[in-house]
Amino acid sequence: MATDEVPAIDDQLPDVTPEEATEPPQDPGAVHADAPGYEQPVVDVEALRRLLDGTYGEVRDLVRRNLVEQRQILLDADEMPRAQFRERVLEVVLDMAATGQTGMGFPEAHGGGGDIGASVAAFETLAFGDLSVLTKVGVQFGLFGGAILQLGTQHHHDAYLADLVSGRLLGSFAMTEFGHGSNVQAIGTTATYDAEAGEFVIHTPDDASRKDYIGNAAAHAELAVVFAQLEVAGEAHGVHAFVVRLRRDGEVVDGVRIEDCGPKMGLNGVDNGHIWFDHVRVPRTALLNQFAEVTPEGRYLSPIENPNKRFFTMLGTLVQGRVCVGGAGINAAKVALTIAVHYATRRRQFEASSDQHEELLLDYGMHQRRLLPLLAHTYALHFAQDVVAADLHDVFSGTTADEQARRLLESRAAGTKAIGTWHATRTIQECREACGGAGYISENRFAALKADTDVFTTFEGDNHVLLQLVAKGLLTDYSSDFSDLDQFGMVRFVAGVAVETVVEKTAVHKLFQSIRDLLPGGDQWDQEAGLLDPNYQLAMLRFREEHRLAGVARRLKRGIDDGMNPGVVFSRVQDHVIATARAHVDRLVHEAFVSRTAALPDGDLKVALNLLCDLHALSVIEADRGWFMEHGRLSSPRSKAISREINDLCRKLRPLAVDLVDAFGVPREVLRAEDLLGWEG
Amino acid sequence: MATDEVPAIDDQLPDVTPEEATEPPQDPGAVHADAPGYEQPVVDVEALRRLLDGTYGEVRDLVRRNLVEQRQILLDADEMPRAQFRERVLEVVLDMAATGQTGMGFPEAHGGGGDIGASVAAFETLAFGDLSVLTKVGVQFGLFGGAILQLGTQHHHDAYLADLVSGRLLGSFAMTEFGHGSNVQAIGTTATYDAEAGEFVIHTPDDASRKDYIGNAAAHAELAVVFAQLEVAGEAHGVHAFVVRLRRDGEVVDGVRIEDCGPKMGLNGVDNGHIWFDHVRVPRTALLNQFAEVTPEGRYLSPIENPNKRFFTMLGTLVQGRVCVGGAGINAAKVALTIAVHYATRRRQFEASSDQHEELLLDYGMHQRRLLPLLAHTYALHFAQDVVAADLHDVFSGTTADEQARRLLESRAAGTKAIGTWHATRTIQECREACGGAGYISENRFAALKADTDVFTTFEGDNHVLLQLVAKGLLTDYSSDFSDLDQFGMVRFVAGVAVETVVEKTAVHKLFQSIRDLLPGGDQWDQEAGLLDPNYQLAMLRFREEHRLAGVARRLKRGIDDGMNPGVVFSRVQDHVIATARAHVDRLVHEAFVSRTAALPDGDLKVALNLLCDLHALSVIEADRGWFMEHGRLSSPRSKAISREINDLCRKLRPLAVDLVDAFGVPREVLRAEDLLGWEG
Repeated sequence: MATDEVPAIDDQLPDVTPEEATEPPQDPGAVHADAPGYEQPVVDVEALRRLLDGTYGEVRDLVRRNLVEQRQILLDADEMPRAQFRERVLEVVLDMAATGQTGMGFPEAHGGGGDIGASVAAFETLAFGDLSVLTKVGVQFGLFGGAILQLGTQHHHDAYLADLVSGRLLGSFAMTEFGHGSNVQAIGTTATYDAEAGEFVIHTPDDASRKDYIGNAAAHAELAVVFAQLEVAGEAHGVHAFVVRLRRDGEVVDGVRIEDCGPKMGLNGVDNGHIWFDHVRVPRTALLNQFAEVTPEGRYLSPIENPNKRFFTMLGTLVQGRVCVGGAGINAAKVALTIAVHYATRRRQFEASSDQHEELLLDYGMHQRRLLPLLAHTYALHFAQDVVAADLHDVFSGTTADEQARRLLESRAAGTKAIGTWHATRTIQECREACGGAGYISENRFAALKADTDVFTTFEGDNHVLLQLVAKGLLTDYSSDFSDLDQFGMVRFVAGVAVETVVEKTAVHKLFQSIRDLLPGGDQWDQEAGLLDPNYQLAMLRFREEHRLAGVARRLKRGIDDGMNPGVVFSRVQDHVIATARAHVDRLVHEAFVSRTAALPDGDLKVALNLLCDLHALSVIEADRGWFMEHGRLSSPRSKAISREINDLCRKLRPLAVDLVDAFGVPREVLRAEDLLGWEG
Repeated sequence: MATDEVPAIDDQLPDVTPEEATEPPQDPGAVHADAPGYEQPVVDVEALRRLLDGTYGEVRDLVRRNLVEQRQILLDADEMPRAQFRERVLEVVLDMAATGQTGMGFPEAHGGGGDIGASVAAFETLAFGDLSVLTKVGVQFGLFGGAILQLGTQHHHDAYLADLVSGRLLGSFAMTEFGHGSNVQAIGTTATYDAEAGEFVIHTPDDASRKDYIGNAAAHAELAVVFAQLEVAGEAHGVHAFVVRLRRDGEVVDGVRIEDCGPKMGLNGVDNGHIWFDHVRVPRTALLNQFAEVTPEGRYLSPIENPNKRFFTMLGTLVQGRVCVGGAGINAAKVALTIAVHYATRRRQFEASSDQHEELLLDYGMHQRRLLPLLAHTYALHFAQDVVAADLHDVFSGTTADEQARRLLESRAAGTKAIGTWHATRTIQECREACGGAGYISENRFAALKADTDVFTTFEGDNHVLLQLVAKGLLTDYSSDFSDLDQFGMVRFVAGVAVETVVEKTAVHKLFQSIRDLLPGGDQWDQEAGLLDPNYQLAMLRFREEHRLAGVARRLKRGIDDGMNPGVVFSRVQDHVIATARAHVDRLVHEAFVSRTAALPDGDLKVALNLLCDLHALSVIEADRGWFMEHGRLSSPRSKAISREINDLCRKLRPLAVDLVDAFGVPREVLRAEDLLGWEG
């Protein structure tokens, strides 16, 4: 090969041409991390912590104090046999209940705090500690207590709330069945009204209908809220909830059979069980009758006529569980990042040259790339979670009560839960690996973090099913008739309307209009804007969302028009459906970050958060740059410029990383990892 | 908005234009899964299993029988306290040793099987069962036994091999230190020769130099192979290995301190410990003297003059550990896929319409997308692992003994270990989530699979460090002087040569030449070839590898030319270095798959494996399609066509999926998961 051919190869290497090496960053206002004019911001950790803690700083501090006081539980989780650990977890839960921490969402009249937002803040913060405790709190106060509160009426509130808030009365939430995970409408447990006796008969007709993985069931619950198919006078009325006794003075009652689920991947301080009911009789008043009633003589009454709507209205009142799990996932990720970032600024590995120290891990570009975008995502999700929690508070405190607001809340909660819990799984894994062998030792927290959070992607709704729910909301514009979990309803609906209507609804028109308004210059707008321009970043995320949504609508319609079975149509479009929902949630998350940052007064804190915010947007775009290029919204040079800009943002954030994780306010005492972090405890 | 603007939006939706809907697949020979001419192959499961088992079918069957016999250990792992479980694991290891299963790699003269390939096959298959057993086998026979065999001489072989092969003599491999994970050359433990006494003094100078996470150390090891800095007559000679007694009749000897590492994320049947040495004296013959000797009077002798080369020659003899861990990861992924695929063809979720059954999970497009590309990657990695294992056998049996072959083996082993173990982490996680809540119950295997395999990405070499080693081999063309772990050596080396030389060495020229040879038509070659053309697929993977490699070389040189510190240069290029190594390994893996498939006689088995092989190639390309588009090797329409082709391949593989996992030959008895899979056990 002749050497004069070498220049031809150079042409094939556009990412290393000398021109680019001296190219300025794409944003005219940006200064490179190592440029002479670059001023590194100083993070006021305490001020940032207060900003993150938000409205409920005092609540969060109460939980932090409780976690520090109860920190022995983290060691017990490693050492105690399962049965003993379950009792320990119960003890801690009851101790915490006594401080008021776990009852904040219940009415003051029943011993609660009367503040839903506070209860979410408390729950989220609890995720810094042992997650069996968190989950047991979720089962008792969120699921069991929440069902009594939201689905029951005065009678049930008076009978149970005060005792369950104090923890004197422990309960289960028995919805999921062995044969029916996400498809709750198809459960098999029956509740048949016996008008003569004035009782419901709760029954498990087959093994597929056994209640599965029910928390608190294997050891502690006295009562359960049981979901069953209501039948009155031979007529089926769909799924309703009933209060059913499981135990009396600790002994399982006749007609109820409970088996322990046995050891689990994590959360072994929670006593999960399988439950079978054999014609168990409960009084008529056991029906949680907020949305439906059966009269003594056996007449079924409900203010909501459409059974589908009734079912989803009932389920909708339980949305707080999803909000809480999403927040818990995000906060568990904070623990992992706090440990991994501290370790990376302490641990040295390999020397740069023989007369120097080994390098700190976080000075390696790859290590920055591994941890810092995850840190940016964690901040973004924190602010997005704040929005969901505030919406929840407003809707359930009656500040905002219209139907549309509820549906938007449900969609946002589903989306944030899915993305937040997947983020937790990914972040904890990356942080474990970034701590090497030390990350594998239980004392360093990753073992429990990983094992305990793993099921967050499944419980309170499988993440894929939740994203389908989000996509359906977008496609149907949250019209009530189709906001159910039946995915084929979506197919039939979209097939039943002119696709242009859907396209119009999805606001693609509006988008293109606003792009033109935003960045005059026609179709080339996104080739010219600065990469660090927040309007550019948001426009990219919006474009992707709207484009994907319109594409799904058209694909669904085309499939039906071609005479395909709705099941087949859905199956083939499903990956686009999921991607659309992700794109939607990514946009919501980023908007939440942008709006919180924009509202800050000028100063170093704002500068630092803007770095994180840019890193979030650009790394979301980079991760899907294939799609943006496929759809003409990203040129090759610009795509490469984004990767370079991300590296530069990482270098800018490197010196701030420790402060940024310290601002999460995870108490040092619960981080453990004393050897790894070199702390005295 | 006027409706006449709608068509303009249609233009913005190229992925759903009606033209594409009726477009044929890109490969002229391919027939869509649902086209009338498509013939579904029938998989002969037993024939495929024999193909996968390869040369060592009998060895694998012996291990399968042992696993079935010892299946109780899987339950014990869930239920036994740590201390008791460790004893149980030891018991199982000794039982298995008695069948000859664990000693196959040792010389027959010392009670072994004299077949290195057989020992790898046995170890890999062991990964179908409890992984504490596997790891304990790895520590005892692979690390401890391997070090005695490879680093020791006749004296050590006679003294120890027979006893360690039988399991009468248990040992540790004490290399890693608290302050020095991957950088073994920097360890702090010292071995100072005392010529007067004719002894070495083994000493731990500080806490950073304690031996960390040492398997077998906390409870069982009588001896350890200890790596320490050798000093003779005041002169440092670098890291050497010594046989040091830890226990005598179960009691820790004077001068040795051992602490238990305590609970870990997984592998709790292995007794890991920290070890400190306080001036422990061992005889001169304790030095494992295959590569260096100290005479009684205190003269240091070695056939390898360069200390760096000596160190890496020593380490190189231990490559079998990496080969084994990679294989174990791949086989653990097979267990997860077997369970998840069976579950997905059994579990129904949501009905397509009211008069139909709920759909099987695997009939959902998204579920196929989640599992089937992972299945294809598992097959590809299986064949790639076969190549590494065969190379290992050839090199260590003396069939191929030159320096270049050893270096290529080391690089291939490092790369396959990294990609194989990451694949295991990812696959097990996806399979767990695909089994929903049931995946969280320990009985269904994912709990242990996930927790136990997690550290595979770290031990036997951190995956990122291993990929740097791979990249360095590519950059330096495996020239011996720079095949060390010091990454800055690479920077200095590349900076020290003309970049054109490196570019030439990386064969980019050759590549472009071969592309022209392969697919005449100039620069548009890759826009015209069929997506299912194996030459196209391989050319894409080769192009990416060579292009990335040349880019790294140029970036390194430019950094040095710009006067940057080598540490900074390396930090900035590190993500490209890692990506280059990944691209290289992806190519090797795919080539292994292609060459095995190509060698098959025509028939259904070949057709089925070709589907998997295509799915592997296209999903590797799809995952990095952003890069291919950035570098002009993929147009937008073609990129979208790849995604469609992947969906079609998934539909074709859907009916074969159960047979394809059954061919892995994971015994039903060790799958457990009876409830989940609906088996009788």
